[in-house]
Amino acid sequence: MGGDEKGGFDRPAYSGEESCVMQYFAEQAKASGLQHHYDNLGNLIIETSGAFEQWVETGSHVDTVPCGGNFDGLAGVVAGFVALQSIAKLTPPLHHGLRLRIWRGEESAAFGITSIGSRAAFGQLSPSSLTMKCRGKLLREAMSDQHADPAAIENSTPSISADEKEHIAAYIELHIEQGKLLETEQRNIGIVTAIRGSRRSWISLSGTFDHSGATPMGNRYRQDCNLAMAYMHVRLDELVHENITNGFDLVQTIGVINSHGDKNENLAIYNNAVSKVSGAAFFSHEIRGADANEVAAYYRQAEILIHNTAAEFGINARIETFSDQSGIGTLNENIQQQITDACDDLKLSHAHMPSGAWHDAAVVAGQQRRNGSAIPVGMIFIPCRSGISHSPDEYASSQQIADGASVLATTLLQLASRNIQAD
Amino acid sequence: MGGDEKGGFDRPAYSGEESCVMQYFAEQAKASGLQHHYDNLGNLIIETSGAFEQWVETGSHVDTVPCGGNFDGLAGVVAGFVALQSIAKLTPPLHHGLRLRIWRGEESAAFGITSIGSRAAFGQLSPSSLTMKCRGKLLREAMSDQHADPAAIENSTPSISADEKEHIAAYIELHIEQGKLLETEQRNIGIVTAIRGSRRSWISLSGTFDHSGATPMGNRYRQDCNLAMAYMHVRLDELVHENITNGFDLVQTIGVINSHGDKNENLAIYNNAVSKVSGAAFFSHEIRGADANEVAAYYRQAEILIHNTAAEFGINARIETFSDQSGIGTLNENIQQQITDACDDLKLSHAHMPSGAWHDAAVVAGQQRRNGSAIPVGMIFIPCRSGISHSPDEYASSQQIADGASVLATTLLQLASRNIQAD
Repeated sequence: MGGDEKGGFDRPAYSGEESCVMQYFAEQAKASGLQHHYDNLGNLIIETSGAFEQWVETGSHVDTVPCGGNFDGLAGVVAGFVALQSIAKLTPPLHHGLRLRIWRGEESAAFGITSIGSRAAFGQLSPSSLTMKCRGKLLREAMSDQHADPAAIENSTPSISADEKEHIAAYIELHIEQGKLLETEQRNIGIVTAIRGSRRSWISLSGTFDHSGATPMGNRYRQDCNLAMAYMHVRLDELVHENITNGFDLVQTIGVINSHGDKNENLAIYNNAVSKVSGAAFFSHEIRGADANEVAAYYRQAEILIHNTAAEFGINARIETFSDQSGIGTLNENIQQQITDACDDLKLSHAHMPSGAWHDAAVVAGQQRRNGSAIPVGMIFIPCRSGISHSPDEYASSQQIADGASVLATTLLQLASRNIQAD
Repeated sequence: MGGDEKGGFDRPAYSGEESCVMQYFAEQAKASGLQHHYDNLGNLIIETSGAFEQWVETGSHVDTVPCGGNFDGLAGVVAGFVALQSIAKLTPPLHHGLRLRIWRGEESAAFGITSIGSRAAFGQLSPSSLTMKCRGKLLREAMSDQHADPAAIENSTPSISADEKEHIAAYIELHIEQGKLLETEQRNIGIVTAIRGSRRSWISLSGTFDHSGATPMGNRYRQDCNLAMAYMHVRLDELVHENITNGFDLVQTIGVINSHGDKNENLAIYNNAVSKVSGAAFFSHEIRGADANEVAAYYRQAEILIHNTAAEFGINARIETFSDQSGIGTLNENIQQQITDACDDLKLSHAHMPSGAWHDAAVVAGQQRRNGSAIPVGMIFIPCRSGISHSPDEYASSQQIADGASVLATTLLQLASRNIQAD
């Protein structure tokens, strides 16, 4: 559903395509004797029948980026659905109910906001989000079109009340890895230890344009932005490896250099030429890490490094952070152990690893109950081919999805069969 | 003449503006009792009156790049003219005649070809040049419009015959430095030792686009083109400094990174993003040096470095050389000494230095006489403000030009007063 002519999928947040997939699961739930309802934000909730005090939950999303794949999000929904379907058939009664949440709009590609459905469900989405646009439509309009109520966001009214939060015993999301660690290490399952946050900045450099033949080498004569930038990148690479060796969980990426339209114009990058010493340069800097303190500490070191290198080359550097989102330092360790046990029972190899990407699970993990404790959250990763996602080439085999679904079902069943809280 | 609204000058090769300046000097020559004529290529030749066996020559050009300055080329023509004017007034008869050559179209900005007038004068411009275009006009048409004869290029007929070459005793060009060595070192005059050639290449890198958060650091997981490129640039910088320390005359410039339209499209640079490991990158590489063997030897080292670094990062590198022009390894040493003596006589400080930029003097220095000897060539540099050229900000003070003209006149007079050849 939502397939495009390039072999990709196009199901933006609050689109008819997204609703169509949700409707399919609602019908399947009905056919399988599971309960279902939509909250006022348009999230779909599917549950085992019966009255329960506590609920063990799973969930993910069905929206995609433009020309995206069919596995990012949907694999977790399918796995969660078949887990509930299978467990519901068992005769021994469950201590806790099982619930699948199909969240709206996790991808930021549509309205520029991640995890719209889950963040709004906890009353944590700014009302200003309603004025963001996708395909020429305001989020407010797109919601109304899909029978969701923008007033819930306007008034910051959660669809999951404080009372309901107290009764979520655990939340476990299955997702494709979106990286190639499992494939490279040849493991079946990833047990997610943490979810990385990110800090993103633009660094702009300005120096002096000079004749490339007539200006001698060396910083006395050249204020060369391209060269200073290369030294910054190598030194930042050395610095991040040093921090990783010291035990920090960090990944650093210089994704964009000199090439984006607007910045290009502002910084006169177009004045650079083959036979000129470069007087302007810029690059993006992204540092991701599970622990917000580690990210902040690393970022301070990086800032100093950039300014010191600029000074050494006689150029100016301006650093402008445009996004800063804290990660989840540690996912619930009891749940990690339950997932590990399930892998062992099923004889599936596994690796413990942080999630580099953001997920709805991070929103749930960020919620506090009345006593200050967090909702216990876990994540199960399955491999995806070459680590590719957000692309028509995104792929996980049926066997890989089935293995993940087995681990998810086993873990949910374990948690729902015992009268204990995961935390 | 040819001034534009931005304070720059616009006098392309074989334009009315260029002819206009030449016409001015022709009139001034007449008024000063000097002889003048145009060759069939439209170059203007101004000479002292009288019959001479040998000629001591100076020359430069009056064309500019678009929105260029009024000193690059023209300063040398003015200095040459006043030198001839002053010397012609002296009573003691000269042993050799003095000649000023005002060359057409030295700047490559117009038709994509450097030194059209001087190269064609020695019969060394390819007939295919006639089909190059500027302002929508073929070079062939532009020449005809300025009463020059394209057939001379069509038939590779030199306007300076083999006989005439035998009678050029020396050629000395004055030019603004187009660098800031003289300004930085606070010297009045640069005595040019060599003219650098250049080799220019595009280096294209292809790796793998990956999720920046989910792909661990290190070459096992990342095939990161931007990062590999930074290591290449730092290592190339170290390599060129090592070669310079070992006595090579080299300057290396990475002027363009990831930012030029066409290459950008071909290499999918637009797929790079803040939150992606970079799967594509490219950069320009320029190495300039006076000695063609040194340039070639360095280039071989650089190629190996680039390919080795690419292999280390698991990416592919493609190197494509698009221009390779040999320099003049050594300008005539007797003339260098004459210029040094003139500076000393005039109490002007000086520095010996290579020319980083290309000049008509390099074309003359590349000519051989029948006995295999080269025409003895020298160059005099004067400082220009902040080393800026090819810009409305290009500037040399009247005093700086006058100092240079005095050195030129003193040197020309010395060479023309004695019955010896410079070589």
